[in-house]
Amino acid sequence: MTADAFDPSSLAPLFRPQSVAFIGASTDAAKLGSIPLIHMKTSGFKGPLYPINPKAPAVQEIPAFPSLAAVPGPVDLAIIAVPEAHVLAAMRDCAAKGVHAVVLFTSGFAEIGEAGRQAQEELREIASDGGMRLLGPNCMGLVNFANGVVATFHTAFGPGLAPKGRVGLISQSGAFGGIAYQVAQDRELGYSLIITTGNEADVDVAECIAYLADDPETSVILLYIEGCRDGQRLSTALARARERKKPVVCIKVGRTEAGVAAVASHTAALAGSDEIFDAMFRQHGVYRASTMEEFFDIGYAAAQTRKLPADNRVGIVTVSGGVGVLMADTAAARGLDVAAAPPRLQDAIRAMVPFAGTRNPIDVTGQIVSDMGILERALDMVIGDGCYQSLACFVGSVGRSPVNGPRFMQAFADLRRRYPERLLSVACLHTPLFRAALDAAGCLLFDEPTHAIRAVAALTQFRRAFDTIPAPAPPLPAAQPLPSGPMDEVAALAILERAGIPVLRHRLVRSADEAEAAARTLGLPAALKIVSADITHKSDVGGVALNLASSGAVRRAFDEVTARVRQAQPAARLSGCLVAPMVTGGVETILGAQWDPVFGPVVMLGLGGIFVEVLRDVTFRLAPFNEDEAWRMIGELRALPALRGTRGRPPADLAALARALAQLSRFAAAQGASLKSLDINPFLVLPDGKGALALDAVVLPA
Amino acid sequence: MTADAFDPSSLAPLFRPQSVAFIGASTDAAKLGSIPLIHMKTSGFKGPLYPINPKAPAVQEIPAFPSLAAVPGPVDLAIIAVPEAHVLAAMRDCAAKGVHAVVLFTSGFAEIGEAGRQAQEELREIASDGGMRLLGPNCMGLVNFANGVVATFHTAFGPGLAPKGRVGLISQSGAFGGIAYQVAQDRELGYSLIITTGNEADVDVAECIAYLADDPETSVILLYIEGCRDGQRLSTALARARERKKPVVCIKVGRTEAGVAAVASHTAALAGSDEIFDAMFRQHGVYRASTMEEFFDIGYAAAQTRKLPADNRVGIVTVSGGVGVLMADTAAARGLDVAAAPPRLQDAIRAMVPFAGTRNPIDVTGQIVSDMGILERALDMVIGDGCYQSLACFVGSVGRSPVNGPRFMQAFADLRRRYPERLLSVACLHTPLFRAALDAAGCLLFDEPTHAIRAVAALTQFRRAFDTIPAPAPPLPAAQPLPSGPMDEVAALAILERAGIPVLRHRLVRSADEAEAAARTLGLPAALKIVSADITHKSDVGGVALNLASSGAVRRAFDEVTARVRQAQPAARLSGCLVAPMVTGGVETILGAQWDPVFGPVVMLGLGGIFVEVLRDVTFRLAPFNEDEAWRMIGELRALPALRGTRGRPPADLAALARALAQLSRFAAAQGASLKSLDINPFLVLPDGKGALALDAVVLPA
Repeated sequence: MTADAFDPSSLAPLFRPQSVAFIGASTDAAKLGSIPLIHMKTSGFKGPLYPINPKAPAVQEIPAFPSLAAVPGPVDLAIIAVPEAHVLAAMRDCAAKGVHAVVLFTSGFAEIGEAGRQAQEELREIASDGGMRLLGPNCMGLVNFANGVVATFHTAFGPGLAPKGRVGLISQSGAFGGIAYQVAQDRELGYSLIITTGNEADVDVAECIAYLADDPETSVILLYIEGCRDGQRLSTALARARERKKPVVCIKVGRTEAGVAAVASHTAALAGSDEIFDAMFRQHGVYRASTMEEFFDIGYAAAQTRKLPADNRVGIVTVSGGVGVLMADTAAARGLDVAAAPPRLQDAIRAMVPFAGTRNPIDVTGQIVSDMGILERALDMVIGDGCYQSLACFVGSVGRSPVNGPRFMQAFADLRRRYPERLLSVACLHTPLFRAALDAAGCLLFDEPTHAIRAVAALTQFRRAFDTIPAPAPPLPAAQPLPSGPMDEVAALAILERAGIPVLRHRLVRSADEAEAAARTLGLPAALKIVSADITHKSDVGGVALNLASSGAVRRAFDEVTARVRQAQPAARLSGCLVAPMVTGGVETILGAQWDPVFGPVVMLGLGGIFVEVLRDVTFRLAPFNEDEAWRMIGELRALPALRGTRGRPPADLAALARALAQLSRFAAAQGASLKSLDINPFLVLPDGKGALALDAVVLPA
Repeated sequence: MTADAFDPSSLAPLFRPQSVAFIGASTDAAKLGSIPLIHMKTSGFKGPLYPINPKAPAVQEIPAFPSLAAVPGPVDLAIIAVPEAHVLAAMRDCAAKGVHAVVLFTSGFAEIGEAGRQAQEELREIASDGGMRLLGPNCMGLVNFANGVVATFHTAFGPGLAPKGRVGLISQSGAFGGIAYQVAQDRELGYSLIITTGNEADVDVAECIAYLADDPETSVILLYIEGCRDGQRLSTALARARERKKPVVCIKVGRTEAGVAAVASHTAALAGSDEIFDAMFRQHGVYRASTMEEFFDIGYAAAQTRKLPADNRVGIVTVSGGVGVLMADTAAARGLDVAAAPPRLQDAIRAMVPFAGTRNPIDVTGQIVSDMGILERALDMVIGDGCYQSLACFVGSVGRSPVNGPRFMQAFADLRRRYPERLLSVACLHTPLFRAALDAAGCLLFDEPTHAIRAVAALTQFRRAFDTIPAPAPPLPAAQPLPSGPMDEVAALAILERAGIPVLRHRLVRSADEAEAAARTLGLPAALKIVSADITHKSDVGGVALNLASSGAVRRAFDEVTARVRQAQPAARLSGCLVAPMVTGGVETILGAQWDPVFGPVVMLGLGGIFVEVLRDVTFRLAPFNEDEAWRMIGELRALPALRGTRGRPPADLAALARALAQLSRFAAAQGASLKSLDINPFLVLPDGKGALALDAVVLPA
């Protein structure tokens, strides 16, 4: 799946129709079908509106048509708000009329079970055959703030529409879209488009992301998602948003079992492992929020900010030492650098307030009770010094003070004017007027001091993601033909070698003589293992001999091992034995690749033994990815210290590990569905500079 | 330290004075010394106010006195607001007058370094010698809402004072106290007392907690803390609050290095390891908040709630399926049980709304667009069913709708009236009027749906803490006399045995003959280790022989081990060798006890090897504690699955581990400062029913 898979222009009739028909339009305001028309009469939409109603010459005082066929001109978009029993007929009417796009509110399709799924498949076919794009069913529609298309039955969108902004919101949940609009009323968060995708019979979240990535009216994308059917497609869309340097903030629900159960009984059953979703978000620099407040906060911050912070240092200015410490804690916990102020700045602050905190946070203390000018001057000094690109300020209740409110509206506006490139994230108790003034000045404003920090951290994270957009991937290698049945270890290792993953030097031997010769060539001490596609747990059948110190011992081991295995598992077909030198040192990791039904090829990394088994300390990526991404993957392991070297052990060769992960990801991507799974366990990462080696592998073809 | 260490009655003159003097009182409103008098003229305080001013016959139109000595009547409380140079004299005047309590705002004491520390010590002595309680220096004072004592220079507290509530706030940071008051104005969060303790020359946070624990006007305690000098004292106070079933919510800053650095440059340098603080909070059921919003949210929820939820099940009712899933995720992540609704209830909901989510969350869907009555009926059905003690509801923008707002104020009030024992936690967009109505009805109201869940989880956590108040501890054992110098393993194990901690059967032998005899008695295979107080790492000097299969092998091992050690470390004094049976199976844990300079005796638990070394997967408790607490400690390990049994391994004997932890805690508490540290590594926990054994131990006396 490449970016070319999306054709945003095909969505133009959905989002930018020239004419709109309302199937199920009604004058009765209590009926759902009345609402889109009520909205669009006053929304500023420029094209013709065609209510369809077989019983009335006019609907809501607008001339109506008995059928879609009776509409004189072309219809770009049809909004269908009829009971489920009439939906198929309405869809066929649309196709017959040559409608280009349909918004379908009606519920009772895939979300209710198998019968609904079949009906939904019919909808999809009608749309596809008729060359129509379909949003829904079971959705709340869409609102385009640029042109007044208010194709929704949510009552929050009328009368009148909020001014257009730069945030595009995509939600699989309908009501969530309405709430998002209402929340935005309280703050400077303006939308370009709100789209709810419902059951996604045709148009899905991924395609909407790709559309907004290309949409010049949109600079930030908010995403509410419960699951998806094609993770690679979603990944491609998110990569596109990142290439266009558009921050994406998401809520992905279904983190917990309770959440997954709730998702299943909501919208159409959708799927996908939450931990792979999470990995995909990290992979593309998507900010994943845990609360609605965080979701809108970060969306607001991204939309307000013209220039993302150039580094991760933050200066904290506070009127409360206690709150300052809380902010410093939050900043450090979120990966920001609470770097000490330079001595010149500390001296200047101390000269003004002898008992001030000067290191960072800069705490101007209760001295402001007698002179608020101290706070103004401190802000000026800290930003003027130039040591911090980002400033987070807690200014108490200044924003609601009748005297100091206006004064600081002015002060912050002045600072922004003089230092337009700096990020000024402010927290205080405030009035709507104060908020409007700071928003207009281009500051970020929050109630909660830690949220001022969180926003700086999020923007820093976006900047880092945009700075590290991966280079276009080289073409994938050709897929290797895989045998259809089970495979022995030697065959599995050969596949790895062809995939460019380093494997332990080894030789397949079929006699004691060959074993002895191999050990002489490969070096001593040696290991000898039985090779058989029929034996998974070699140790359990006595099929392993380790630490063989002499070639004679290797010769003897061949016979002993073979005899033990024949006795333990007489029916197993034996390919011979594998001889390899013993390797000591290094850290055992586990590398895996699998074909995920939702996400396609996925690569896993974990540390051996209890790290994976007890702590589930593993991390994932969608394949393919490059070495930079592999480094980030390694950095996500909780057990990273074990790889960096502990207890006097040397650091492991992380570069070799990163290379192998990237190679594995390219192999997995090239194989596609032909590779069910591949496990390299252990993959031994030797001390730095010494490389890394696959010691054993199991490959399962599809 | 026991609860008796506190004498709350001695704080009465501070919090409930009959008369107040103002040293440094001024008529000039720009001067800090003017503010407490400005406040108290209109605060409803009933006793006499005595401004002290040598130059004016009246201050702020109240008759003034040239000196404290000139005041005719007794003075309970003196508020000192004079420059640092005059503080000592003012304190001496107070002592001479027989003042009972002092609030001292002035900065420039322990927080500025050694000279300040000495001056502060003088203050403490004057107070102590004069029988006066001292709040401060470097504090913002206190406000008692019950009697109008507004002994603070924070301007937020005037004119007029908010109505008295049931939340007591204690803060080491001054400005934080003022902010806490201002934040409370926005919501139904009323205070009984706000106390800022500053440098804590005398009155500290712990004593204030003990006071509020006993204060009938206070039912919830909010705590902002940066550190403390006596962790056991704080622990005792928190235990007292828990015994009185008063929820404690805290912000403890200094979680990160950046935070610790910021604390050091704020207030007087205070100390204490954050992870031990964290353990202490868990131990006493204190809710630790990460943001100010969370701090006040949980404080508000606790103060609003008359009856804590009886179980941890939560029913979720939502008008948005998407938000419902987010709430379910949050609930599960916070340990609540999102239990499925009973079939009778699910059927009833489905009968009303065919496409509703019915399992839990109960999602009434967009059907409410045409009939808001559906939401009312759904709430009634879910609460009426009785299956959930706690309900969390997301009702969209109902709270700001001119039509539906009043309707649902009534609906929620009705539900509360009919089901007064149930917890109703509501989230929606709302107006101040709607908030006031729901607060008055006894609901909890939030903007953010996940916060409605968070509050339920916090209240559930308090209930659990109050249900598990530990029984009064039995008297501690007598302290063991410890040798003054280094100790060998046999001596260390003997100390453990006397402390009631099971140790591996072993024998100290001084000859090959004795070794052989010991092995015969103890059983084979055996282990033999050198015993010497001078040798810490026995393996490094060849001092260990394992898996000795015969008594002959044990005999030979004695000579070999002794010879190897003599060669490797000729100067070491050898006590002989230890012979013990080999033990197999089980999980290796590490148990530790140490004397912490801030917290006193502290016990640590971790899993052996990389769990402790790489992941720092350890947990702490203040000693002593009982077995219930030890179980909770075990439950906090991330590696818990390794103890519960993985990869076909049997579960470990956690009861034996809990017993040993509790015993160790009693031993550590009894030893007090005489025990610098004790490490049991490994402490082998055998399969369930088989017990647990200390295999090795190092004891360091003070």
